[in-house]
Amino acid sequence: MNSLMEILGVMRYESGKLSPVEIGVATEYALTILLNGRELVTLLCSPTYLDELTIGYLYCEGLIGKVDDLLGLSLNESKGIAWVYTKDRRDIANLPFKRIVTPGCGREATLWTPLDMEVNPVDSQLEVSCKGLLELVKEFQRRSETWKMTHGVHAAALCTFQEILVFREDIGRHNALNKVFGHCFREGIDTRYSIVISSGRISSEMLMKIARGNVPILVSLSSATDQAVKLAKRFRITLVGLARGSKLTIYSVPERILV
Amino acid sequence: MNSLMEILGVMRYESGKLSPVEIGVATEYALTILLNGRELVTLLCSPTYLDELTIGYLYCEGLIGKVDDLLGLSLNESKGIAWVYTKDRRDIANLPFKRIVTPGCGREATLWTPLDMEVNPVDSQLEVSCKGLLELVKEFQRRSETWKMTHGVHAAALCTFQEILVFREDIGRHNALNKVFGHCFREGIDTRYSIVISSGRISSEMLMKIARGNVPILVSLSSATDQAVKLAKRFRITLVGLARGSKLTIYSVPERILV
Repeated sequence: MNSLMEILGVMRYESGKLSPVEIGVATEYALTILLNGRELVTLLCSPTYLDELTIGYLYCEGLIGKVDDLLGLSLNESKGIAWVYTKDRRDIANLPFKRIVTPGCGREATLWTPLDMEVNPVDSQLEVSCKGLLELVKEFQRRSETWKMTHGVHAAALCTFQEILVFREDIGRHNALNKVFGHCFREGIDTRYSIVISSGRISSEMLMKIARGNVPILVSLSSATDQAVKLAKRFRITLVGLARGSKLTIYSVPERILV
Repeated sequence: MNSLMEILGVMRYESGKLSPVEIGVATEYALTILLNGRELVTLLCSPTYLDELTIGYLYCEGLIGKVDDLLGLSLNESKGIAWVYTKDRRDIANLPFKRIVTPGCGREATLWTPLDMEVNPVDSQLEVSCKGLLELVKEFQRRSETWKMTHGVHAAALCTFQEILVFREDIGRHNALNKVFGHCFREGIDTRYSIVISSGRISSEMLMKIARGNVPILVSLSSATDQAVKLAKRFRITLVGLARGSKLTIYSVPERILV
């Protein structure tokens, strides 16, 4: 056990049975870097080696190039703030920033944080069986043709409990989900009675998209972070992860899942 | 074959032999969204359903809530620009933006683009054997304790061709790599003669960090995008992917890899 993970009690479906187990989930932490007194960026990360993360970020962004460039670094771990001072005192507002949202998850600018977002808990009577979910996952994997060829893309889908309605692929798991929601928005498809499947890991930001769409059930082929699980409980979203083969892990609101 | 992928000729090491093969790699594309005439964000994505991606991004960021909010959308696919007009004409500079870099890759603000970055090609005589690389990968996987427990973190390491010198884990593959570079920066470790291993996919942004550190050999347990491969060739970086068990795929500069 270390600060990279937390032990959570969850429900696991295996060999046709649902039972409570304890598993490790990755912890998620927000570190805001203040460069020469001005907010530079907030990194969602694992809470280890935060000094190295700060220095490495500045180095990889080209803001420091040699040891002399770094004048000082001070961390407040409980507040999640790193103050860093560099020789180069140019106003960061004037730096040639190029905003980029990276594949796999990246989002540069978010208009909310989980704490200030106004979203109502999902109020849905939807219920699905474990077998039904696993059938959907099997169909989801069957349709991931590009993944089979490249092992380099994610997929997301909007489903009823019987079939996949929208299926999209992208190098970024956020982009794949955005494409699904973009389709639903344009076509007027109500997502409040749906199941969403994602091939990617569920962080707080992925979870908040699902909350915004009032989707009652989110299924991931991968795992979830501790923050995603906390938010799923708060917004009454059934979060299912590690869904492959004949197994499911139910992180939150298990009432909607029937054996 | 579709626009989500491209076929590339690479070298594959398998059953003790190195031979040329053709594989599919995921394509990487940059889409800049201009909201009501002002640059909002650049998304690195797969070039499909760009209209849905644009709409879904705005929806998931809370910039549009219902179909009436969207007045118009115009795409120039060759230039990678989406012009979008919404009812809400607030200046986006005044929106309560919260800059967040997400786990797994996210970076909000990059100070370069691959095209305008000044980095010299890596000039290194380093050579390693396939067996040596696979031994390093085996040790890398053995040390990924948190991954074994959570299936929810990435790892990155700096190695000589004999051992791992720095090993870091994080929910984000960019963060893990930043921690490694942050350590090297602070400790004065020269990365120009090293091998870097990452558990995560290699996109153009991951590759550019390696180029900035003048690292001659990058090994990923996962795959690479077409743009990462192009940049690796340009910067003379040996990019090795899908490194697991007894197999390696060499995307670029294979001269440094010996059987």
